[in-house]
Amino acid sequence: MDIPTLRWLGDDGGPAIELLDQTRLPAEEQVVTCRSVAELIDAIRDLVIRGAPALGLAGAFGVALAAYRGDDVAAAARVLAAARPTAVNLAWGTGRALAAYQSALQAGGLDTKRHAAQAALAAARAIAADEAAASAAMAAHGLPLIPPGGRVLTHCNTGALVSSGDGTAFAVILAAHRAGRLAKLWVDETRPLLQGARLTAWEACRAGIDHAVLPDSAAAGLLASGAVDVVLTGADRIAADGSVANKIGTYGLAVLARYHSVPFVVVAPVSTIDFGTADGSGIVVEHRPADEVTTLAGQVIAPPGSPGYNPAFDITPSSLIAALVTERGIAQPVNRGTLRVLGDLPAEPKSAVPDVSVEL
Amino acid sequence: MDIPTLRWLGDDGGPAIELLDQTRLPAEEQVVTCRSVAELIDAIRDLVIRGAPALGLAGAFGVALAAYRGDDVAAAARVLAAARPTAVNLAWGTGRALAAYQSALQAGGLDTKRHAAQAALAAARAIAADEAAASAAMAAHGLPLIPPGGRVLTHCNTGALVSSGDGTAFAVILAAHRAGRLAKLWVDETRPLLQGARLTAWEACRAGIDHAVLPDSAAAGLLASGAVDVVLTGADRIAADGSVANKIGTYGLAVLARYHSVPFVVVAPVSTIDFGTADGSGIVVEHRPADEVTTLAGQVIAPPGSPGYNPAFDITPSSLIAALVTERGIAQPVNRGTLRVLGDLPAEPKSAVPDVSVEL
Repeated sequence: MDIPTLRWLGDDGGPAIELLDQTRLPAEEQVVTCRSVAELIDAIRDLVIRGAPALGLAGAFGVALAAYRGDDVAAAARVLAAARPTAVNLAWGTGRALAAYQSALQAGGLDTKRHAAQAALAAARAIAADEAAASAAMAAHGLPLIPPGGRVLTHCNTGALVSSGDGTAFAVILAAHRAGRLAKLWVDETRPLLQGARLTAWEACRAGIDHAVLPDSAAAGLLASGAVDVVLTGADRIAADGSVANKIGTYGLAVLARYHSVPFVVVAPVSTIDFGTADGSGIVVEHRPADEVTTLAGQVIAPPGSPGYNPAFDITPSSLIAALVTERGIAQPVNRGTLRVLGDLPAEPKSAVPDVSVEL
Repeated sequence: MDIPTLRWLGDDGGPAIELLDQTRLPAEEQVVTCRSVAELIDAIRDLVIRGAPALGLAGAFGVALAAYRGDDVAAAARVLAAARPTAVNLAWGTGRALAAYQSALQAGGLDTKRHAAQAALAAARAIAADEAAASAAMAAHGLPLIPPGGRVLTHCNTGALVSSGDGTAFAVILAAHRAGRLAKLWVDETRPLLQGARLTAWEACRAGIDHAVLPDSAAAGLLASGAVDVVLTGADRIAADGSVANKIGTYGLAVLARYHSVPFVVVAPVSTIDFGTADGSGIVVEHRPADEVTTLAGQVIAPPGSPGYNPAFDITPSSLIAALVTERGIAQPVNRGTLRVLGDLPAEPKSAVPDVSVEL
C-alpha cells in the first residue's frame, strides 16, 4: 500500500508490525513498531491506528504476530479482539485469522505450528488484498461520476489511512486525480475531531492533489459560488432503504448539494449495507463525549458551564443521494430495489469487505 | 450595562477605561485598566475589545480619556481612529466624541477645557445609551417571534460583549429568556474563530440560559430532529434588496432552516442596511488569513502544505429570510420595499446606531 498504515515485517527484522502513528499526523510522520501483541494492543488503545477496516487488519496481523512468536494464539486473539469493544472489525479480522490458524493446526502434518502461523498471515494478507481490490473497484465505478476538470467537495477521512487500499470516497478522488480530471479537492475540516483537516488533507498532500481545507460552515457559500461539481462522502452504515449514517455534517452537505443542484454521491462497500435495518429511523445515533466539542487537545474553548452537543453521525435519506458507488457497481437512484440488486450480486472480491467507516 | 465590556472610571479611580479582556474568555474573566490612550490602543490591537459597536464605544471613551488627562485630544483621536484600519465604527465613535469636544472648546467660557472634556464624555455616553436603547427596541420587536417554549439556534456572537446594550439577535434571545418563553438555546461554535463557543456560550452561562454548544455541522441534524423552532442571527451588512452579509455559515443555516420549514430571522439595527449597495452581488466577501482555519486555539490542525480557505462571511438572499427585526420595527417579508419603509421611518433613538457586526 502507498501509505504505511500497517506493514508486516517478516524476515526483514520481524516478526513485527509497523504502524504509522495517526495521533501525530499531520505534524509528524512517525512509525511505531509492535513486536508483541501487548504492544499492538497499546497502539490500538492509544489510537495509533484507527478506523474500522484498518482495525480489522490490525486484528488479523496481530494473530499472525502471536503465531510467529509462538504465543498462545487463542488467548492472544481474545485480548486483541477486546482492545476496543465497539470496533466490530477488530473482532472480525482477529476471528478470521484465528480460524485460518486453527484449521491449519487441525490439518496436522510436519512442522504444523509453522504452517499454521503462515496460514494466519495468509488470512491477514487476504483481508488486505480483498480490501485493496474493493477500493480499486469502487474507484473504477466512481470515476465516470467526476467530470473532466471536476471540483470535488469531501467530508471526513475515507482514504488509505483507514484501509489497505485507497479507501472509499478518497479512492474515487485519487482515481480522478491520476486520470488528470480532478481540478480541485475541497476538504471539510470535519469538526469536532478534524479528520478532514488532519488526515484527508495529509493524504491529499502526499498524493499531490490541489486542495484546500475549509471550515465545515463554509461549504454552503462554496456551493453557491459554483465552485463544486460533485460532493463525495463515505458511509458508516446504510439502511435497506438507502438511508446513510455517516460522520456528523454529511446530512447538511446533502441538503445543501440538493439546494444547489450539485450531485451528492456516497462511496461504500456493499458490506456497509445493513439489510436488517429497514430504514434510517432504525439507526440509533451515538452521542460522543461533550468535551470533544468544548475542548481541543486539552484547551478549553467553551465555558465550563456549557454542555457540548456531540452526535457522532447523522442520517441522510436516500432521496438526497444521487448515487451509491460500491465495489459491485452503482445504485442510481438509491432505493430499496437498487440496493437489493447490489446485495444479490455475486460478491467480487469473494471475501466480505469490512466497513470503511471512519471511527476514531 | 450587565457585562462590563467597557466601563468608564471617573472620580472612582479615573480617568481610566476598564475593559473585559475578551482574549481570555471563556477561561478567565479579567479586567484590563487603560489609563492612557496608548494603553487603550494596545488593548484594541490585542483584541481585548472587539466587535464593531464595541469599538465605536472604545473610540469615543478614548477621546474622553485624552480630554480628561489634558492630552492633545485631536492627535489622540487621530491615532485612536487608526488603531484598527478596517473598523469603521472605531473612527465613527472617535469622530463623534472629538466633534463634541471641539464644539465645546469653540463655545469658550470659563473652565473651557473641563467643559469640553465633559462634552466628549457625554457624547460617548450618548452613543452607549443610544445603542442600549436600540438593543431594547430590537428585543421588544423580536420577542413575539419566539414561541412559548421556544428552542432557538444561533450563530456567532451578537450579545453584550459587542454592545453597550444586550446586542442584536442575543437581545431577542435574552428577552425571550426573561419572559420565560425560551426553552433552549443552541449555540453554533462558529468556526474558525469560535465566537459561539467562546463568547455566546459565556453570555448564555452568565444569563442562566439553558444552552448547548454544537459543531456547526451538527445544526442540520438538529433541525431535522425538530429540536429548533427559530434560527436567529445578526448581520454585518444588509444590501438594499435585503441580502444579508454575515459570519460564514449563516447562509448554510438559512438554506437548512428553509428546507426544514423553520423560520430564519435576522436581527440588526437599521444602520446596518446599506442602501447604496443594490444587492448581494455588490458585497465583496473578505477572505481572512488561512491560518485561522489551519490552526485551532493556537494548535496546528492541518499539514503545512494544505492551504486554508477562509471567507469571513457569506451572503444570504432575502428570499430565505423570514423577517428582519430592527429597532424601528420588523420587515416581513424582507425586500426592497419593506427595507425602504424602515429606512424612511424617523430614527428612534435619534442618533445613528453603529453596526452590530461581530468583526474580530
